[in-house]
Amino acid sequence: MSSLEQIESVEGILNKHIPEGEREEVLKILYGKETKPLDLPLSALSIAEKNNFEIKGYSFTAAPEQLRSPRIVRVGLIQNQIVLPTDRPIKEQRDAIHQRIATIVKAAAEGRVNILCLQEAWTMPFAFCTREKKPWCEFAEPAEDGVTTELVKDLSNQYNMVIISPILERDGNHGDTIWNTAVVVSRGRYLGKHRKNHIPRVGDFNESTYYFEGNTGHPVFQTEYGKIAVNICYGRHHPLNWFMFGANGAEIVFNPSATVGELSEPLWGVEARNAAIANSYFTCGINRVGTERFPNEFTSGDGRPAHQDFGHFYGSSYVAAPDGSRTPGLSRTKDGLLIVEMDLNLCRQVRDSWGFRMTQRLDMYAKSMAAVLEPNYEPNIIS
Amino acid sequence: MSSLEQIESVEGILNKHIPEGEREEVLKILYGKETKPLDLPLSALSIAEKNNFEIKGYSFTAAPEQLRSPRIVRVGLIQNQIVLPTDRPIKEQRDAIHQRIATIVKAAAEGRVNILCLQEAWTMPFAFCTREKKPWCEFAEPAEDGVTTELVKDLSNQYNMVIISPILERDGNHGDTIWNTAVVVSRGRYLGKHRKNHIPRVGDFNESTYYFEGNTGHPVFQTEYGKIAVNICYGRHHPLNWFMFGANGAEIVFNPSATVGELSEPLWGVEARNAAIANSYFTCGINRVGTERFPNEFTSGDGRPAHQDFGHFYGSSYVAAPDGSRTPGLSRTKDGLLIVEMDLNLCRQVRDSWGFRMTQRLDMYAKSMAAVLEPNYEPNIIS
Repeated sequence: MSSLEQIESVEGILNKHIPEGEREEVLKILYGKETKPLDLPLSALSIAEKNNFEIKGYSFTAAPEQLRSPRIVRVGLIQNQIVLPTDRPIKEQRDAIHQRIATIVKAAAEGRVNILCLQEAWTMPFAFCTREKKPWCEFAEPAEDGVTTELVKDLSNQYNMVIISPILERDGNHGDTIWNTAVVVSRGRYLGKHRKNHIPRVGDFNESTYYFEGNTGHPVFQTEYGKIAVNICYGRHHPLNWFMFGANGAEIVFNPSATVGELSEPLWGVEARNAAIANSYFTCGINRVGTERFPNEFTSGDGRPAHQDFGHFYGSSYVAAPDGSRTPGLSRTKDGLLIVEMDLNLCRQVRDSWGFRMTQRLDMYAKSMAAVLEPNYEPNIIS
Repeated sequence: MSSLEQIESVEGILNKHIPEGEREEVLKILYGKETKPLDLPLSALSIAEKNNFEIKGYSFTAAPEQLRSPRIVRVGLIQNQIVLPTDRPIKEQRDAIHQRIATIVKAAAEGRVNILCLQEAWTMPFAFCTREKKPWCEFAEPAEDGVTTELVKDLSNQYNMVIISPILERDGNHGDTIWNTAVVVSRGRYLGKHRKNHIPRVGDFNESTYYFEGNTGHPVFQTEYGKIAVNICYGRHHPLNWFMFGANGAEIVFNPSATVGELSEPLWGVEARNAAIANSYFTCGINRVGTERFPNEFTSGDGRPAHQDFGHFYGSSYVAAPDGSRTPGLSRTKDGLLIVEMDLNLCRQVRDSWGFRMTQRLDMYAKSMAAVLEPNYEPNIIS
């Protein structure tokens, strides 16, 4: 198999080749307690078929309790390729993606999704590899009332969905600065936003050329379906970032991302899942799909000759539960919608069982970290 | 396959059933960049064969640098069952394990291991499930000069090895308290100790009945082979614990453990590996093997009837590298010695490449955590 042919999914290969009996044991070890497939309505399946995107459903369960009813929520994750080539006018590129996503959101609505999350900078190609400001900065728009947020408000209103819409934000009130921002819309109204906390400087991810580290802290959004937060892309490499969303009470943390194979794929199944375990909440990793080619050539800081593409965004969006179990990933090559039903009661049940919060000794770490920050900090080394 | 038959290893099943071509792709995604098998001398292999334990070797490489020579280190991890039944006299049980381990350490020496780590509380059955103080507390011994540390000093001296020896410690200078402690011995001399920072209260892990949270902070031991630290067992669930060993400069963090299948196996391949990624250092997970049966019945706090065994310790010891790659695990059922060669230069190379340390924003988190600790902390919730 050449490295240019992309395999469709790891789980597909495991299911195809490993005989029953052994397969269940292997999957239990690799993926945790089995997630049950979720029956999706024909109307949703048919939109997917007609529009050539994958649709999959799974459910996580929790134990019944005496004093709390189950808190069942359906989450939808969308991964997608850009629609038009990157040399087409900005407005055409954006409108084409808007239209594509509106179609997939319709399928999510048919699948009774309550909270939907789109991929990072979903309205545009991930053009930060180019280090060109023109024309890419034109994709930036106001968080509260840009054209994309207006579209998202309409969809949210129409389908009674909470929608997380990660865009490139233009802040006109603060010197026209640009930010990598997730906008949260609920019942057709702007609820708030979160700006990406950790900005990469690795490979083609020249994002620090465009925007700074986020200044919105670690907000948790109280929605009618539960408490949610957004850890944007590179923030998934930072356990402290995941930690703080948990400290503020998040029950589901979304990780809208854009990341490519050579660099990060072996980490992809590890990091968001580890965060689910460590913080006893659900995590949802979303990655874009496809190979994006740009009009002008650029270099990648790795000695290779100049080239025009970003490598392969490998999709593989998935959901992980606080008990360490996870769904299979969506396709590595195709647009897709993942619908996952979960009982949020599982978070507290796992906290009671594993006790990670009780045993976390936060007082010790707050002190240790403050000490580490001192310019003259002397590491605790025994020699 | 009944749940009582244990599969030997996940990797064995993947290798057996998935055809070449697809197999490489799947393993690259699941395990990262391939670790090369390490040729081990016949003398080591023959000790293993004669004494019925598995022996495996792998190596991680790093890129050549202009100003630093490679810093090649061989690490050895030992996983083992107890030797005698738990109703035999304490001294006999301990001496039998001592003898068994001395044999395996000899193979490690033949395999030119520089730093060796034994499993958690390696001199004894993991008797904390019983909540009985007698006779199990008798396994506790002084860290600096107990019989086990004396044995370890001899082995360390004889083979010129750094040895990490996790024992049950008795501190006669502080009210005869008991601790879960890793003793570090170098060149035949006691170098220092670390006490387990996070103590579980889950399932059969009634360790808080016996000892408190460790009071030794996050020491890093400067050895002639590199800077090492020890994150004992349940501490692997705590990203802040991993973090602080990194802040103090650790290049390899060992995670000697004792953990059973039903509870933690899906987490096992995730947590230490995530720590390697997040902190750009090597991590080494070690888990004991087998099913331990105790003289008196006990309950597990889960509604099951009283019983006498602890469930299956699933071995599966492995090493993960800062680039997210990992070795296959040792057997799920057999004693084993894992010898892994690594170039410690990889740690800084990955730090330069991924930039997680530079982008970690520790000042923000030290402040946030201090705030979270306030009794009246109000979570940042937007509603």
